[in-house]
Amino acid sequence: MPYDMIIQGGTVVTASDRFVADIGIKGERVETIAPNLPADGSQVIDAKGCYVLPGAIDVHSHLDMPFGGTSTADDFESGTISAACGGTTTVVDFAIQFKGQSPRQGLDAWHKKAEGKACVDYGFHLILTELPEGSESQLDGLVDEGVSSFKVFMAYPGVFMLDDASIFRLLRKTREVGALTTIHCENGGAIDVLVKLAREAGERAPKYHALTRPARAEAEATARAIALAEIAKAPIYVVHLSAAEALDQVRVARDRGLAAYAETCPQYLFLSTRNYEEPGFEGSKYVMSPPLREPGNEEFLWKGLRTDELQVVSTDHCSFCMNQKALGKDDFSKIPNGAPGLETRLYLLHDGGVRAGRISLERMVDLTATKPAKMFGLYPKKGTLSVGSDADLVVWDPEKKFLITNKALHSKADYTPYEGRAVTGAPRTVLQRGQVIVKDNSFVGKIGGGRFLRRGTFKSP
Amino acid sequence: MPYDMIIQGGTVVTASDRFVADIGIKGERVETIAPNLPADGSQVIDAKGCYVLPGAIDVHSHLDMPFGGTSTADDFESGTISAACGGTTTVVDFAIQFKGQSPRQGLDAWHKKAEGKACVDYGFHLILTELPEGSESQLDGLVDEGVSSFKVFMAYPGVFMLDDASIFRLLRKTREVGALTTIHCENGGAIDVLVKLAREAGERAPKYHALTRPARAEAEATARAIALAEIAKAPIYVVHLSAAEALDQVRVARDRGLAAYAETCPQYLFLSTRNYEEPGFEGSKYVMSPPLREPGNEEFLWKGLRTDELQVVSTDHCSFCMNQKALGKDDFSKIPNGAPGLETRLYLLHDGGVRAGRISLERMVDLTATKPAKMFGLYPKKGTLSVGSDADLVVWDPEKKFLITNKALHSKADYTPYEGRAVTGAPRTVLQRGQVIVKDNSFVGKIGGGRFLRRGTFKSP
Amino acid sequence: MPYDMIIQGGTVVTASDRFVADIGIKGERVETIAPNLPADGSQVIDAKGCYVLPGAIDVHSHLDMPFGGTSTADDFESGTISAACGGTTTVVDFAIQFKGQSPRQGLDAWHKKAEGKACVDYGFHLILTELPEGSESQLDGLVDEGVSSFKVFMAYPGVFMLDDASIFRLLRKTREVGALTTIHCENGGAIDVLVKLAREAGERAPKYHALTRPARAEAEATARAIALAEIAKAPIYVVHLSAAEALDQVRVARDRGLAAYAETCPQYLFLSTRNYEEPGFEGSKYVMSPPLREPGNEEFLWKGLRTDELQVVSTDHCSFCMNQKALGKDDFSKIPNGAPGLETRLYLLHDGGVRAGRISLERMVDLTATKPAKMFGLYPKKGTLSVGSDADLVVWDPEKKFLITNKALHSKADYTPYEGRAVTGAPRTVLQRGQVIVKDNSFVGKIGGGRFLRRGTFKSP
Amino acid sequence: MPYDMIIQGGTVVTASDRFVADIGIKGERVETIAPNLPADGSQVIDAKGCYVLPGAIDVHSHLDMPFGGTSTADDFESGTISAACGGTTTVVDFAIQFKGQSPRQGLDAWHKKAEGKACVDYGFHLILTELPEGSESQLDGLVDEGVSSFKVFMAYPGVFMLDDASIFRLLRKTREVGALTTIHCENGGAIDVLVKLAREAGERAPKYHALTRPARAEAEATARAIALAEIAKAPIYVVHLSAAEALDQVRVARDRGLAAYAETCPQYLFLSTRNYEEPGFEGSKYVMSPPLREPGNEEFLWKGLRTDELQVVSTDHCSFCMNQKALGKDDFSKIPNGAPGLETRLYLLHDGGVRAGRISLERMVDLTATKPAKMFGLYPKKGTLSVGSDADLVVWDPEKKFLITNKALHSKADYTPYEGRAVTGAPRTVLQRGQVIVKDNSFVGKIGGGRFLRRGTFKSP
Repeated sequence: MPYDMIIQGGTVVTASDRFVADIGIKGERVETIAPNLPADGSQVIDAKGCYVLPGAIDVHSHLDMPFGGTSTADDFESGTISAACGGTTTVVDFAIQFKGQSPRQGLDAWHKKAEGKACVDYGFHLILTELPEGSESQLDGLVDEGVSSFKVFMAYPGVFMLDDASIFRLLRKTREVGALTTIHCENGGAIDVLVKLAREAGERAPKYHALTRPARAEAEATARAIALAEIAKAPIYVVHLSAAEALDQVRVARDRGLAAYAETCPQYLFLSTRNYEEPGFEGSKYVMSPPLREPGNEEFLWKGLRTDELQVVSTDHCSFCMNQKALGKDDFSKIPNGAPGLETRLYLLHDGGVRAGRISLERMVDLTATKPAKMFGLYPKKGTLSVGSDADLVVWDPEKKFLITNKALHSKADYTPYEGRAVTGAPRTVLQRGQVIVKDNSFVGKIGGGRFLRRGTFKSP
Repeated sequence: MPYDMIIQGGTVVTASDRFVADIGIKGERVETIAPNLPADGSQVIDAKGCYVLPGAIDVHSHLDMPFGGTSTADDFESGTISAACGGTTTVVDFAIQFKGQSPRQGLDAWHKKAEGKACVDYGFHLILTELPEGSESQLDGLVDEGVSSFKVFMAYPGVFMLDDASIFRLLRKTREVGALTTIHCENGGAIDVLVKLAREAGERAPKYHALTRPARAEAEATARAIALAEIAKAPIYVVHLSAAEALDQVRVARDRGLAAYAETCPQYLFLSTRNYEEPGFEGSKYVMSPPLREPGNEEFLWKGLRTDELQVVSTDHCSFCMNQKALGKDDFSKIPNGAPGLETRLYLLHDGGVRAGRISLERMVDLTATKPAKMFGLYPKKGTLSVGSDADLVVWDPEKKFLITNKALHSKADYTPYEGRAVTGAPRTVLQRGQVIVKDNSFVGKIGGGRFLRRGTFKSP
Repeated sequence: MPYDMIIQGGTVVTASDRFVADIGIKGERVETIAPNLPADGSQVIDAKGCYVLPGAIDVHSHLDMPFGGTSTADDFESGTISAACGGTTTVVDFAIQFKGQSPRQGLDAWHKKAEGKACVDYGFHLILTELPEGSESQLDGLVDEGVSSFKVFMAYPGVFMLDDASIFRLLRKTREVGALTTIHCENGGAIDVLVKLAREAGERAPKYHALTRPARAEAEATARAIALAEIAKAPIYVVHLSAAEALDQVRVARDRGLAAYAETCPQYLFLSTRNYEEPGFEGSKYVMSPPLREPGNEEFLWKGLRTDELQVVSTDHCSFCMNQKALGKDDFSKIPNGAPGLETRLYLLHDGGVRAGRISLERMVDLTATKPAKMFGLYPKKGTLSVGSDADLVVWDPEKKFLITNKALHSKADYTPYEGRAVTGAPRTVLQRGQVIVKDNSFVGKIGGGRFLRRGTFKSP
Repeated sequence: MPYDMIIQGGTVVTASDRFVADIGIKGERVETIAPNLPADGSQVIDAKGCYVLPGAIDVHSHLDMPFGGTSTADDFESGTISAACGGTTTVVDFAIQFKGQSPRQGLDAWHKKAEGKACVDYGFHLILTELPEGSESQLDGLVDEGVSSFKVFMAYPGVFMLDDASIFRLLRKTREVGALTTIHCENGGAIDVLVKLAREAGERAPKYHALTRPARAEAEATARAIALAEIAKAPIYVVHLSAAEALDQVRVARDRGLAAYAETCPQYLFLSTRNYEEPGFEGSKYVMSPPLREPGNEEFLWKGLRTDELQVVSTDHCSFCMNQKALGKDDFSKIPNGAPGLETRLYLLHDGGVRAGRISLERMVDLTATKPAKMFGLYPKKGTLSVGSDADLVVWDPEKKFLITNKALHSKADYTPYEGRAVTGAPRTVLQRGQVIVKDNSFVGKIGGGRFLRRGTFKSP
């Protein structure tokens, strides 16, 4: 019996190719790509009429994250089940070194959160909330442990924000050790003044979250992050880019040949400030940072996805329930920032991106699997379907109808920003390392079956 | 005996992936990609330590082309042998509809030149030297015959140049029929005045070829071509882009989301105006249009290759012998334009691009095989190594030393612009449709074994 | 009696200054600028509460111009009376060298049209409708005669359009003799194809004039004109720039330090494509080339006026009566191109520019007097109010209400594009060379009192 | 006797005009501009063959400024004598609110420094070294007192640097009160890290001052300052812009129509990093922030001066003697930052700018007098020569040879960065408010004769 499993007759799709073939799996890995593999004794999954995609990777999730006395709705169990059901077989979550902690403490805490719970493979970035002069050496061993990316904030002064000197020192350090700095780009100083002024003026509604976080504040910080990276001769990765004018900064930098990279998220492609106008407190569902932007921005983001100004679509999954959102009932600045998204990413990109003619199917694979795998040290184990890769894959039925409702999804959040949206195209079966973990929209894998991934160093994608 | 041939143990490289595997070939096609294929009875080629690349495609050659009373040094036999020995297994040559001829006559002439001679597979673009109002319908059947791209000139008034109205009508027509307009962008009007003035001033040396063809004249025409295409809502492909300021135009257009594409050629990446300063009449070797540019331009072109502002590296192979170049001994404007290049492309790109850290190996495959295949309707038959593709491939030894000399090459030209350049990396074996056609730098295939390729319509790559 | 006339107590405005002073005039010139000039015996004009502006200059008018079997509605008499009543005391009209004529013949014809009729001072640009190789020397004496600017067209193939080679030769020639090339930038080749297609599709309405002349066709030609000038190392002046994307080209060129200049016209600042939607055949009133543009473009033009991307506001006065427009009743392409504007320029710029806070008063003077005077060789005789300048001036009442109606204007056109627009600010008195020529909206000067101006060579403004 | 003084027969130059006329002065003001004024009894200054320029204004000086235990070499007496001898009749100096002080205390201190000493008219900007939340109201009365501009630093963390939130609050406040925020743009955070690293690496030489302050750090801060101003809807004025890439940021902002303004200084136009290579400790003469830049930047700055990307040339006069510079003998970071320049500005701009064909004479007047007067609330009292303006003027002999040496200058600094430079063009006589204060390179005015200027609010120039 040559193969443990055969994915039969599907259209295999990679970041650059598309062809009909069987995939023969041995153990946890892809062994053979060829037509008409002999099925003697192997488990066979019929993929005729379906795409066979590499399992998607999400490099931006916040699972089991403490926030303002509460915690995100999804822990590593519910979050990764949700991910898997949406075709995502790897998450890189953000561990946090809180003030006063060592990086080690931050990582240990997150390892504990994930172990025995995570249902897909996972890695960690490490958020640094402080980096006192001289403390850079604390990061030394982390890359060897497989934590090869860090995150800092230019927003949230007093909580997460690092000053430019600290960011600059981190950039120099990451360059030295082969890591990648990811960065939340919004000018926290200006924003906090605007928030204070709005509150003093008596503004309470969720939409003021957006009105006090102008796109220019994101564009400014994006430019600054890239400039600091340029001076430090380090690569930089801008997370959740949301606005056309921020994209302009990345574009200009890339035109100049800099190692500047950026991701956007489905919420910035499919939602807009109009959502803040929903009645009552419904607008709070969309309170996230950066906020949703004026309609029109999304066309620039799609263009950026096509022309490689943007390299990744991640989710920024950071789920809260409406009773948590209610913390900001009387004060928009108290609404927990974030929304669920791990499960809906591929549905939306396939239906609203590929089927709508905005990106090719190959580019969807590239943006959700290959590019993130390459940049974050997971390739070629993850991110593609080639001989020797982990057999993480999605049998995607491009004609299956799916109605996005919170009920049909698996997150513990009690809403989805896309409630009621009908899409065409859905996963039929999802495999991780050769095992079926999702079938017909149900998680059938093992709780805690996900493995920690020691990621390699940054490589230009 | 399951496979006719097995390429064993090489590192297979595609535009996005790289992995160690055997390739099993049946008949003319790739059948299986897997490790350790059973070799029972199959012919085996050992590729250990080598890359296995898709056969390269050159979409810019001029074989057996009449020019000023003479003809290019290479016909379809010598030219395609030269191509094959350099790892290129498909050429798309430029057939010419001369003034007064129908497109049919132009194509018939080129079919005749190629049949029985071409040693690699081939297709034709059609150069239009006139397109009188109302004659667009002559192009109607051509796409069905597999000729899905046309070429026009903004240079050479009175010979090849079309006016803007004709170009614009062609763009509208190609959009209608799914073809792609390729275009030589130089402002012929201004250039001809400059040439005349230089001649009147008694300037004769080859370098005046470059001095009378300023980069701005290329940039202007590039911008104009793209603007005409934008108005016509048609895609456009700029051939042999040579200068940073022309690249700027493509970049700006792409930043705006237009379907503007461009190729550059090795000569613009590895040579410069300094070559025109070589003693005696040696500078004539580099007389081509656009001319070589000031040193410094190449860095912008490499950047463009990295960031997908440029999608293809082609050769513009248009070989003349020095006795032909001598037609312009006393008048730079009489020097036949062109130089050989079909054979040296991969040597140069691998050594000076990949090994020098300027592009990745995957990007080299993309630029020389996958992207041109996709744009010019050859994919997935050509341009990649996936199940079902033609078994056109190159076993590339990345450590093999090769000294580029005209003696070691196979073109009938009596010089190479790269004489004496030592490179690392060379083809060991080249296959076309499953047959070895090059071994140890010798063509071992069949004269005339190349087949005409009916290309499909243009697709965004 | 020290002064022939004193303009008393007004606020004198120049391109950079504004101050209260009397202006003492002797003979035809400004003699003294000082407060409280002794009035003994001088004629006194009370300007208290008024601005005293340099007489405006219009460098773009078409008077007594033959067009398609008819002729513009205004000859030099009615046209210049109209100009004067609107505060314009100098016009530079376009003489035409028709095909087969010598430049001399063209100029002689225009001298004849103007002599004895022109009521304000005037000069001529010369339109070249052909410039065969070798004929450049015909232009040699013209600069000495005071004709130091030429105009060519990139539009109207077969009628006015010159090919790029001819334009390039003209640019080199003008550089040699110190003249300035002015240029109509629209890609005539593409436009003519679009016009033909629209006609074939049965489109007849005036709005198709705009729909067949896209802004991109203007932007393209603008970029090309500037590129040709750059290669020729000559300055260039783009006439009637109408669209944001054309402005982009000028801006980029100026950012690069090139001698690229451009004018816009009030119609592009105050009207838009919406005007083509007026009922019946009313849209024909606005048929001009370039056409009116989509709403929104005007904001970019105002910005360009503020930041010196645009240096001049001219009128492109080219008046036809509605019975002439009717030539295109059944075919938009037969509608005579042009509209009246000589008289309304300052009204509109003062009310909609200065009062609306879009430009300063000083900038209005700069754009309508000083800059054109400097660029077209009229300065310091014309274009400013300084000691020794011609006493061409306008006593402008900034609070006077004026209702723009064709009845209230002096052109022989039977409509104004601004019918019914109420403005604040109007000329009270207009002087030419020390003589009152307009009083209370009536021309009181002498028919034929205008003098031909021998203009000096081009100077960077 | 109608005039107290007549400036006879010179060529009067303003920002837009140039004409031969006498200037009649009554009391402190310009009364009459006319030819051939009757000289009966008036004092007469013969200006034939000379330019008559408005007295120059310097809006960037640091006189009597404490710095690291020492103080600048020039106090208000020597500094303003130096200014006057160079043709500058107004300075706007930077008063400093040190930490813990109120704005009032800062201003009082500077008033005390200037009173009885200043030999030319003067005003103050106020440097804010802190702006705690809620303290903005302290600025309320200052504009009424004539202090209508403030300065903040993005460099010098711990000393002068304000965080973004404070800068943003200041911008909102200045917008409210009609003041202008001027700003030192360098990313102090990154720079301080680089300085520390260089020191740790044992680098001591003056050139490390430049090597640790990269142009990109200036460009970044420039972009950030403009973005904060854009969000605050306030104008912004970038001081001492030194680098092409910083200019790019201003250009882009202005192209977008923002109220972003900038000055450069002669040192960035005439010196470069090459000066840091001078032997021994000579390089310390040029230690200033931003540092001198790589050769080539100056051409972009000249272009910016021509095209109004830059509006002002100021001096940043901040003089130290070599024994003060010696504080940094063993540590480049201890070298006092600054160099003298008040006296040499017009010499350099006239010789190296106007005579060299880089800017027009009118533009020199604009950049050194009219534009700063308009932006900083001094116009029309200062900054031009028109009826009613202060009779501050310079009789400038354009043919007079002058050898710049420290001996020939009047600053108390013991060196000039331009030692030995021979220039053509020099002031012959300088007047302030109708009184001769400089004659033949000697100050002949009254010590302490300068008056404090209550400046008006910001106006767009």
